[in-house]
Amino acid sequence: MSERVSDEAVTKAMGEISSRASSRRHGDTSPYIHKVESPPKQTLLQEIKYSVVETFFPDKPLDKFKDKSWCRMFLLGLQSLFPIFEWGRYYNLKKFKGDFISGLTIASLCIPQDIAYAKLANLDPQYALYTSFVTPLVYAFMGSSRDIAVGPVAVISLMLGTMLSDEISDFKSHEYLRLAFTATFFAGVTQMALGVLRLGFLIDFLSHAAIVGFMTGSAITIALQQLKGLLGIKNFTKKTDIVSVMRSVFSSVHHGWNWETIVIGLAFLVFLLVAKHIAKKNKKLFWVAATSPMISVIVSTVLVYITRADKKGVAILKHVKKGLNSSSAGEIFFSGKYLGSGIRVGVVAGMVALTEAVSIGRTFAAMKDYSLDGNQEMMAMGAMNIIGSLASCYVSTAITVTTTRVVSDVGGFSRTAVNNMAGCKTAVSNIVMSIVVLLTLLLITPLFKYTPNAVLASIIIAAVLGLVNIEAIMHLWKIDKFDFVACMGALFGVVFINVEIGLLIAVAISFAKILLQVTRPRTAVLGKLPGTTVYRNIQQYPKATQINGMFIVRVDSAIYFSNSNYVKERILRLLTDEEAQRTANGLSRIEYLTVEMSPVTDIDTSGIRAFEELYKILQKRKVQLILANPGPIVIEKLHASKLTDIIGENNIFLTVANAVSTFSPKGEGVV
Amino acid sequence: MSERVSDEAVTKAMGEISSRASSRRHGDTSPYIHKVESPPKQTLLQEIKYSVVETFFPDKPLDKFKDKSWCRMFLLGLQSLFPIFEWGRYYNLKKFKGDFISGLTIASLCIPQDIAYAKLANLDPQYALYTSFVTPLVYAFMGSSRDIAVGPVAVISLMLGTMLSDEISDFKSHEYLRLAFTATFFAGVTQMALGVLRLGFLIDFLSHAAIVGFMTGSAITIALQQLKGLLGIKNFTKKTDIVSVMRSVFSSVHHGWNWETIVIGLAFLVFLLVAKHIAKKNKKLFWVAATSPMISVIVSTVLVYITRADKKGVAILKHVKKGLNSSSAGEIFFSGKYLGSGIRVGVVAGMVALTEAVSIGRTFAAMKDYSLDGNQEMMAMGAMNIIGSLASCYVSTAITVTTTRVVSDVGGFSRTAVNNMAGCKTAVSNIVMSIVVLLTLLLITPLFKYTPNAVLASIIIAAVLGLVNIEAIMHLWKIDKFDFVACMGALFGVVFINVEIGLLIAVAISFAKILLQVTRPRTAVLGKLPGTTVYRNIQQYPKATQINGMFIVRVDSAIYFSNSNYVKERILRLLTDEEAQRTANGLSRIEYLTVEMSPVTDIDTSGIRAFEELYKILQKRKVQLILANPGPIVIEKLHASKLTDIIGENNIFLTVANAVSTFSPKGEGVV
Repeated sequence: MSERVSDEAVTKAMGEISSRASSRRHGDTSPYIHKVESPPKQTLLQEIKYSVVETFFPDKPLDKFKDKSWCRMFLLGLQSLFPIFEWGRYYNLKKFKGDFISGLTIASLCIPQDIAYAKLANLDPQYALYTSFVTPLVYAFMGSSRDIAVGPVAVISLMLGTMLSDEISDFKSHEYLRLAFTATFFAGVTQMALGVLRLGFLIDFLSHAAIVGFMTGSAITIALQQLKGLLGIKNFTKKTDIVSVMRSVFSSVHHGWNWETIVIGLAFLVFLLVAKHIAKKNKKLFWVAATSPMISVIVSTVLVYITRADKKGVAILKHVKKGLNSSSAGEIFFSGKYLGSGIRVGVVAGMVALTEAVSIGRTFAAMKDYSLDGNQEMMAMGAMNIIGSLASCYVSTAITVTTTRVVSDVGGFSRTAVNNMAGCKTAVSNIVMSIVVLLTLLLITPLFKYTPNAVLASIIIAAVLGLVNIEAIMHLWKIDKFDFVACMGALFGVVFINVEIGLLIAVAISFAKILLQVTRPRTAVLGKLPGTTVYRNIQQYPKATQINGMFIVRVDSAIYFSNSNYVKERILRLLTDEEAQRTANGLSRIEYLTVEMSPVTDIDTSGIRAFEELYKILQKRKVQLILANPGPIVIEKLHASKLTDIIGENNIFLTVANAVSTFSPKGEGVV
Repeated sequence: MSERVSDEAVTKAMGEISSRASSRRHGDTSPYIHKVESPPKQTLLQEIKYSVVETFFPDKPLDKFKDKSWCRMFLLGLQSLFPIFEWGRYYNLKKFKGDFISGLTIASLCIPQDIAYAKLANLDPQYALYTSFVTPLVYAFMGSSRDIAVGPVAVISLMLGTMLSDEISDFKSHEYLRLAFTATFFAGVTQMALGVLRLGFLIDFLSHAAIVGFMTGSAITIALQQLKGLLGIKNFTKKTDIVSVMRSVFSSVHHGWNWETIVIGLAFLVFLLVAKHIAKKNKKLFWVAATSPMISVIVSTVLVYITRADKKGVAILKHVKKGLNSSSAGEIFFSGKYLGSGIRVGVVAGMVALTEAVSIGRTFAAMKDYSLDGNQEMMAMGAMNIIGSLASCYVSTAITVTTTRVVSDVGGFSRTAVNNMAGCKTAVSNIVMSIVVLLTLLLITPLFKYTPNAVLASIIIAAVLGLVNIEAIMHLWKIDKFDFVACMGALFGVVFINVEIGLLIAVAISFAKILLQVTRPRTAVLGKLPGTTVYRNIQQYPKATQINGMFIVRVDSAIYFSNSNYVKERILRLLTDEEAQRTANGLSRIEYLTVEMSPVTDIDTSGIRAFEELYKILQKRKVQLILANPGPIVIEKLHASKLTDIIGENNIFLTVANAVSTFSPKGEGVV
């Protein structure tokens, strides 16, 4: 066959094809002329099964159990519930070396952060350490991701602190602590339930944009809260909104700021930020940033101890309880007036924690091309928080100081990212970290007595600054304005009101976007690309020409009750406008309206009625309705509703080109 | 050109075309090879304008004001607010004849029904008559539909009765009446606000299926309630659920039933149903059905008066207040504890009333090919209810005894349909009807004293039986199982709990359906239809063959945060399965994954990220990602996010056929 064919030959061949198509029309059984076919009939049971499988089991979790003996199935089941039994068999000393180093590094990063984060949740420091001891152990056995480290995080801590103190304002009281355990328990139950019921897709409803906004807003809020520690202010507002906080800060400027505190805080903040900057420039120096919080704590503690700066008003941590967690099983409210509050806080915190964990997990899974079992991950998180809540822990999730950075893959700095860079290969690093925290609890905690609060504030600020991701927000603005609005809504909600409202705004905007799409789908007028039989949107392809006597419209969405009326009216309006224009240009009137149905993936009874009405109105106007390429589900419903009989099987075509060649064989263009 | 070309010639021509396409690839500027184009760049302002216009002004209401003088614009504005000024100018005596007859007919149908419906709302009969006097007058001036008659209807009356007595259980109290006016006022405000803010599309969220279920359930509930009047039971439950009602009925079987009442009730019920049947068989005899309620009332009243059956325990209407409405402007709660209840009930009742009115209006608009201005209609309804609430009326809407019948166009019987059949041409029929009701209020009401309640019950039962539309429900089952579930949910909710819960269930199921669609969109594997360059779903077209070395997938939905991860995983799973199968069949490995993007009408930042991840994973597996036919919005966002650079402009094609001819020139099939 010749490499190059003259244009005339092609045009001729195409003309022949289209004239052939027109001459044969539909009754023809030639192998080249295809009718719109119905898919093989499915029984109701098959349909339901398909829907259920796609909704709840899109990952086909049971495929691996097929054709296996009972014993093997039990083993596989055990392995999928406790992945450690799978990868543990191939564990060796070389891997342990990597795990050991990364476990140590994470521990040195997380111990100072834990102590600081506990304050955000209005809890004593040891509870965060307890959490970093117990939950990584559980996750090591049950987690499906090799790259995730777990523990308390800033945003969840702040969220817990805000929501819990809404319920019990006196957070020194024992009730407050009990409510924290209760919320943790129900956070775990929520996560477990989502995993077991395979409802993990629910967390997808928190869009990426909303998360970026929520995280940025939370980071700003958390950083502002640290002004208390950094400036040494004693009477600080309990509210988290920016207006209350700034009022607190400025009203105390003359008598409430402690200059020694400020010097210590700022000095270490600069040190921490420089360390982070170095690590960012040279990825091999990641340990500089990873150990900088620990160094800050040690140096500042020694400094305060020597200079007795605490006598000059530098606030210090005072007492961190030595020893291991005690059981808190009896502390959880299973009845009484706080049960409801506990459930509410737990459900929200559990969902947000999952969102963070899953998005981190997915990023690593994509980076290394392994598949993350979302539902297993949720069960692991759930088990870890349930067990945690019984052992004096609070809500734990995948650790990351800079979720959004990691997620948007800009190469941010996070503990999980450290885990990754430190060469960790398995969840054993979590066990190593847990053991380091255990030793800290048993041996070192009394030494934290002289640690100045200002340094803890600096550590938090340095950590959360990574969450402020201007780049990601700019990216949103560039790509999708609606996403940007969702992001800003969440951000301002968090900063100006509180985390709960911010979250609510984010979810509401995300839903509004989905609803807008299904209420006002796009339509396009199609024209023929010159020299082809391809029909495309004339707005996107200005060269495309319309067909004389025919008007071709494409509907770009499933047609449901929420948009059926709009779609009908919109098509009629486009037709009316086009008719007026063609008449004005002295062209022949439109006799055929072709609706390209390719993107119409589904239609419901309201949609069918809209088409019935459309057909009737068009009949009155002496315009023939033609459908092109209805999909499997649509053609089935058109048959079931007898609409195919009303419109006429002869007016339903496989392609727009077929319709054109049948009704307008010459295919004259209209420019 | 020959009429028939041999198959070989066509095959050859097509082969040439595809080989030509492959030899030229993208750089080519030949007029026949088209690249994917970006639409003309739009500024942010243009984009926002487009979204706002499509969401709120899809009907372009301001087009008619273009290029008009100020004076003309004012006149046009007045005409669109009060359509009577438009059609009134062409009014003549001949039209009045039709209006007069139809107005009389509707009045004779609605006066007995009004008296009966007032009971459903726990109000005295005169309030329904007041409503039928005032609201049609207002509607005549402001309504945009020529075919709609307005007044109290059964479902809204029941709904008001249920919801108001939840707030104030003693419905003999003056507070109850005041709350009814308050709810009516806020129903009007809601309707007016939806019209003015152009939020009319919100009522589209109550799907056709949900309305069918809700109406059927309400009809059953209303009919069951009538057992009280029909059987002459004195101690009847105030609840509306079927269990409570049946318990009331059977517990009173031995001492509570009144046999004289039952005889009267059943006799007239049979008469009414026979009259309806006759009218259904012969449309010209519609007046038989239309006048039958009036005849029943007159005959039964005379009968009771002569036989003094009321002394034998036949309950009679007793007193209907004579005279006109008094002002109720001072009765509305604008503050105090009932304000909130009034707003809540009003918003719900207003929305449901609109749903009924708009669906009736649309049906007539489609039947007669005129366009109904939904937002104007809402303003008219709103004004009518606001004015009504100030003049002792309760919620009024488009009258129909059989909404669903009219809507599904089975040719049911309704007052609006009577209006239509009686030859009414304009809204003047509403004025005629209003005057007849006025005369009734002034002159005849005392005569209703001896009307037996049983006959009123019969009239209601006969009326609402038309709402039970088994045919429509069967239709739903046949076409769309999900719609059927929504319908049944609403039906059982209304029957077993109450109207509010039924409505809530209907809305929740409708939303769940939309969310399911956007969370789990369909994907299809495409193959080439033999002898064409058309690629279609291989499930729908089993003859379609896949391409050797290439795998073609189509995503059937916009890609948003709610489904982006699912879409990615789903494509990868399809690829993995197909690869396994091809390897098993000894076919060459898949080198190219083509994603057909035609139905992907939009993509957000989460979707972009999913494609980035997909690309990375495919690179790891040494599979090249190819995109076919991205739409205008998608290609713009792909450019904005630089994803086109990552994937490579050369891997983005106008059609699947182009991609195949480029990468698999021979296009060998795989069966």
